[in-house]
Amino acid sequence: MWSYKTPGIPDEFFITGEGVPGPTKEEIRALTISKARLRKGAYVIDVGCGVGSLSVEAALQVGAEGRVFAIDDDEEAVKLTRANLAKFGVQNIVQVIHGKAPEAMLELPLADAVIIGGSASLKDVIKVSREKIKEKGRIVVNAIMLETCHEALQEIKRLNFREIDVTTVFVAKGKWVDAGVMMMARNPITIISATKV
Amino acid sequence: MWSYKTPGIPDEFFITGEGVPGPTKEEIRALTISKARLRKGAYVIDVGCGVGSLSVEAALQVGAEGRVFAIDDDEEAVKLTRANLAKFGVQNIVQVIHGKAPEAMLELPLADAVIIGGSASLKDVIKVSREKIKEKGRIVVNAIMLETCHEALQEIKRLNFREIDVTTVFVAKGKWVDAGVMMMARNPITIISATKV
Amino acid sequence: MWSYKTPGIPDEFFITGEGVPGPTKEEIRALTISKARLRKGAYVIDVGCGVGSLSVEAALQVGAEGRVFAIDDDEEAVKLTRANLAKFGVQNIVQVIHGKAPEAMLELPLADAVIIGGSASLKDVIKVSREKIKEKGRIVVNAIMLETCHEALQEIKRLNFREIDVTTVFVAKGKWVDAGVMMMARNPITIISATKV
Amino acid sequence: MWSYKTPGIPDEFFITGEGVPGPTKEEIRALTISKARLRKGAYVIDVGCGVGSLSVEAALQVGAEGRVFAIDDDEEAVKLTRANLAKFGVQNIVQVIHGKAPEAMLELPLADAVIIGGSASLKDVIKVSREKIKEKGRIVVNAIMLETCHEALQEIKRLNFREIDVTTVFVAKGKWVDAGVMMMARNPITIISATKV
Repeated sequence: MWSYKTPGIPDEFFITGEGVPGPTKEEIRALTISKARLRKGAYVIDVGCGVGSLSVEAALQVGAEGRVFAIDDDEEAVKLTRANLAKFGVQNIVQVIHGKAPEAMLELPLADAVIIGGSASLKDVIKVSREKIKEKGRIVVNAIMLETCHEALQEIKRLNFREIDVTTVFVAKGKWVDAGVMMMARNPITIISATKV
Repeated sequence: MWSYKTPGIPDEFFITGEGVPGPTKEEIRALTISKARLRKGAYVIDVGCGVGSLSVEAALQVGAEGRVFAIDDDEEAVKLTRANLAKFGVQNIVQVIHGKAPEAMLELPLADAVIIGGSASLKDVIKVSREKIKEKGRIVVNAIMLETCHEALQEIKRLNFREIDVTTVFVAKGKWVDAGVMMMARNPITIISATKV
Repeated sequence: MWSYKTPGIPDEFFITGEGVPGPTKEEIRALTISKARLRKGAYVIDVGCGVGSLSVEAALQVGAEGRVFAIDDDEEAVKLTRANLAKFGVQNIVQVIHGKAPEAMLELPLADAVIIGGSASLKDVIKVSREKIKEKGRIVVNAIMLETCHEALQEIKRLNFREIDVTTVFVAKGKWVDAGVMMMARNPITIISATKV
Repeated sequence: MWSYKTPGIPDEFFITGEGVPGPTKEEIRALTISKARLRKGAYVIDVGCGVGSLSVEAALQVGAEGRVFAIDDDEEAVKLTRANLAKFGVQNIVQVIHGKAPEAMLELPLADAVIIGGSASLKDVIKVSREKIKEKGRIVVNAIMLETCHEALQEIKRLNFREIDVTTVFVAKGKWVDAGVMMMARNPITIISATKV
């Protein structure tokens, strides 16, 4: 049943490259996309797209009527994202932008959701996201550092986003060894999401 | 942006009732649906549907061309599921079956995925699922008990499912109290999923 | 083998009271005491002692030659702590102080470790702890809120503590139900500990 | 304040060697020792001692009047354990036995606690532990595999141990990187402990 165009893509299906983080692990992708609450036809901005895994999954949700803008200032990331878009057949839905956020966001149309996987200018990205997100649109920040978590939360509160949700996720995956299934941990991630009103 | 027809439904939007477990928490719903790898048009069997939260989310993924069969042997669960299907506008996609699994599964058409939230006859349900799942289709079992986890894993191995994935998920949710955000844990769940080949 | 004077006291053995938090759960007690690295004869300050569970465990570690100072500004907490000290036979090792931290800490002798379970004046308590901890002594802060975690970490860094350790602990406990063992989550706690040099 | 003779030993202080698992991570050591409820003078059997980290911590708890028997059938493990006992000054408390459990346990005196870090013959080790543990003594099994967890639990139930406790622990540790503190997960462990009555 599974095909490239189906959500829930196993990690190993993405094309990766040294020096570029990602793909975002399957479980975190599923949760991030869920928090973004993407309907068919939605517009999404993916800040710090890495190898493009979240952009691919977002594209599968928003479909041909939707649009995803994948931003990264690393050239290798841009290349890998393009390769993955082609592999999963969503190159017509996702536009890749080689540039720095938040500057690269300024020209984009209003979006239903902004997903922030990582950025050196987190505060400014959140501030610009506030302008770029439509009424009732969503912001989703994935934090793997305590400082990012704190900063994102403070900024999202300060900018009067509503329905702020903080979700920390610990995932362990079974690994098959001789004697049975050993549970191997993934690093915990805190997903901060909210609605613009 | 959010509407009833959008995946990532907050828990409190589901109609619930005493004595019926559910809804499956947002994060577990997202992960379960992701593990089922549902494309547009897929057929899904939801065993032990409770208030119907997984059936609703599955319906949002498979769309009007797809089909979901929601089974529960509790009358109140069947009522609540129907109420939620109507609330989320997916009553034409989901067929509710008041009956015991696996017996109630026997008449159903082949499915792309079987999702097992809970059942008193887990082993037999998995065995019948093996027959009911199409080639390359998926089985997903959500276990909250050590015994269920063990039994599901053994049975899925014994029946030669492939790509067996064991994922334990610990989620903590921020709760807003006077002094800040307190992290409140949800009970861990182990999701066992696999592909029929 | 187990007796009141043995570390690893089950939670239900502590005397508790409405309105007073605690006891600190068994697993968190064990980890907190471990992070404090208490040898026989050590002096310990327990800030925000609640029902006194950490003070009791600290007393079992430092023994008759050691000393524990248990501070709480809640009268009921002070009473419950006294009751637990008596129950576990460590009333001669632990001195209970009814007062506010950090003020109540000022008169105390230098300590080998300060354990901070909770305080309304966290920053000031950490600052005074810096003065009250002996060379190579330890500070341990238990945070259940994101803000406490962030504030404690920043202050401990700012005050040049060394060997700063941040440990987040998620615990799930088996609960026996009819069908088997269900895993029930405890709220995650972040333990921040460091050494004064 | 910290000295070699103080519980809560940082992982990096243990002498390690390729091919020998261990040391048991600090947090798991603290919890394992806590679950064993060791008083001064207690006798402890450590099955599958690896580099000896649990034996060292047990020795620090039971003191000079107590006794620890560290068993491993790997020669390198025996050597490393001896080196660590010497390093932490507890070589007079711990007796190292080069042999296979449960056979190597048969000659030992009755113990207050048996700690099972790992063994190829888990069921038999638990069975012999039942004989070797004094009334009210403790058994503690650390499981990193689903199968070990299930098998230990079933066997401990079957042998009528009481106060059976199942504790799953997920730990994440802060790692200092340029931008702040990144949380890195440790593999989850399930600690099964119980009392012989």
